[in-house]
Amino acid sequence: MVHTIIGVMGPGNGATQTDLDNAYTLGKLVAEQNWTLLTGGRNVGVMNAASKGASEAGGLVIGILPSENKEGISQFVDIPICTGMGSARNNINVLSSDAVVACGSGAGTTSEIMLALKTGKPLVLLNPSTNLIRFIGDLNYPVPPNLESPQKAVQTIKELL
Amino acid sequence: MVHTIIGVMGPGNGATQTDLDNAYTLGKLVAEQNWTLLTGGRNVGVMNAASKGASEAGGLVIGILPSENKEGISQFVDIPICTGMGSARNNINVLSSDAVVACGSGAGTTSEIMLALKTGKPLVLLNPSTNLIRFIGDLNYPVPPNLESPQKAVQTIKELL
Amino acid sequence: MVHTIIGVMGPGNGATQTDLDNAYTLGKLVAEQNWTLLTGGRNVGVMNAASKGASEAGGLVIGILPSENKEGISQFVDIPICTGMGSARNNINVLSSDAVVACGSGAGTTSEIMLALKTGKPLVLLNPSTNLIRFIGDLNYPVPPNLESPQKAVQTIKELL
Amino acid sequence: MVHTIIGVMGPGNGATQTDLDNAYTLGKLVAEQNWTLLTGGRNVGVMNAASKGASEAGGLVIGILPSENKEGISQFVDIPICTGMGSARNNINVLSSDAVVACGSGAGTTSEIMLALKTGKPLVLLNPSTNLIRFIGDLNYPVPPNLESPQKAVQTIKELL
Repeated sequence: MVHTIIGVMGPGNGATQTDLDNAYTLGKLVAEQNWTLLTGGRNVGVMNAASKGASEAGGLVIGILPSENKEGISQFVDIPICTGMGSARNNINVLSSDAVVACGSGAGTTSEIMLALKTGKPLVLLNPSTNLIRFIGDLNYPVPPNLESPQKAVQTIKELL
Repeated sequence: MVHTIIGVMGPGNGATQTDLDNAYTLGKLVAEQNWTLLTGGRNVGVMNAASKGASEAGGLVIGILPSENKEGISQFVDIPICTGMGSARNNINVLSSDAVVACGSGAGTTSEIMLALKTGKPLVLLNPSTNLIRFIGDLNYPVPPNLESPQKAVQTIKELL
Repeated sequence: MVHTIIGVMGPGNGATQTDLDNAYTLGKLVAEQNWTLLTGGRNVGVMNAASKGASEAGGLVIGILPSENKEGISQFVDIPICTGMGSARNNINVLSSDAVVACGSGAGTTSEIMLALKTGKPLVLLNPSTNLIRFIGDLNYPVPPNLESPQKAVQTIKELL
Repeated sequence: MVHTIIGVMGPGNGATQTDLDNAYTLGKLVAEQNWTLLTGGRNVGVMNAASKGASEAGGLVIGILPSENKEGISQFVDIPICTGMGSARNNINVLSSDAVVACGSGAGTTSEIMLALKTGKPLVLLNPSTNLIRFIGDLNYPVPPNLESPQKAVQTIKELL
């Protein structure tokens, strides 16, 4: 049966401690909903923390890797998808997720937020910068829910799915 | 824990009955080994038959779709990866598989066989055309095992992994 | 001899008249520098206006299309590259440009700005929203030059190349 | 005005002297027809030889590179398209060509032949292995013209366009 896939996107090396804590809890909550987690698959930042949370809660973790092989993969990924296409894989992250949570802000993460807006994918922002919210307000898209806790993010996803 | 992923590639609409029977049994055997099946994800031919076999045996099925959404997906796919990149996704099929089984011959399948040869991915041919075997002999690659039954294919994969 | 390729990115249907005017002049100036123009190739918005400007000034225009064929192509494109990979082609736009000018703001354009920041590609913003500038200031990247005229954009590119 | 783009595909390091000679002449003839040449862009084998031929005859050369940057590019490429997506770029080679000539046989080249068959792209085989011709006969596609000289290849392309 087809899984409900929740993409959690966020900074790698530039993640803040808040981002990492949120991502870990978010991963856990995603798994507790019997949803499958999807991340960028690398062993750093939000990707790794969310994967750890989901994995420890018994969830399944998909990692969409930029690389041609499993080099640099998070140890918490169950299903590595080796794309070999670098940042172009960000589009696959978005298209394959039933809903996307952006956890923190970074350049790669923002590219995924923009692609999610463009495709009309359900999107939740967890602890974004205020200026990002303002900037999205300048674009011709509805501003996505801007939430402060992983619990609220999961609640909102349930309403959006 | 990272899954062992076996890619089963084969014709869609052009699959023969033998290809379909082989794919179904292969999917079943892959699941019985606790391997995860990966296919091109569509609801036709070898992709669909292998997914059905694995699914009925309780296995997990990844479908790497050419499309941007789940249109045309096999009902036996658990994890749809929506690439939105058409046949360029064939490369992801190969890179993400720990071993590749080509079940029958078709143009798309042959492109995947070629990419598997090029990356040195463990590769097994199940009931290929004799002329394909001869042609691979013309290239500068070792000719992959050419087997007649799904059982032998699985046995050979076990040795190659 | 390898061409110097300047990527001009900007909104399609959502482009403002200022964006269109800037894009047209920018395309013209790019051609006058003997640079080759690269755009997303479609017959709308900034892509089309920049291509028109470059074409009328005798320049060469590359269009990196999201589609599998030339459907929807700008009539001012000389070299259509049909990627068949949708918005994932945005990464190719950035990687193939020696410098990127973002002309106006849109979701797709912003994804390209983010990918340019990430790869360290020379980047110029032409008439961006103030909130985008503020947001980039929140990220860990140098804020790119934010210019008001195509003339200044070209001058800055010359310094960055 | 949109260029007529002829893709010349063939082995890199594994090219034979005949392949290289054919590719060089083919590149020259393509340029003399005022067609634009498209290759895989690297500085080896058929890609490099065809690019040299076209360049010396004053033609324009597009190189669709597998890499993220210009590393390993043929010195005869005018328009480098940096895809950063490895062999998945083979699909772009095919989609962007108005006609494809496969010059010799190799694994990557054969993947391109298969993608060309699948998309119904005009396709010419120049000096292919006999077993490849036989194998294509096993598939459900018309066997493409199998020619011995670059001159005949160009003549056939003119009829197919």
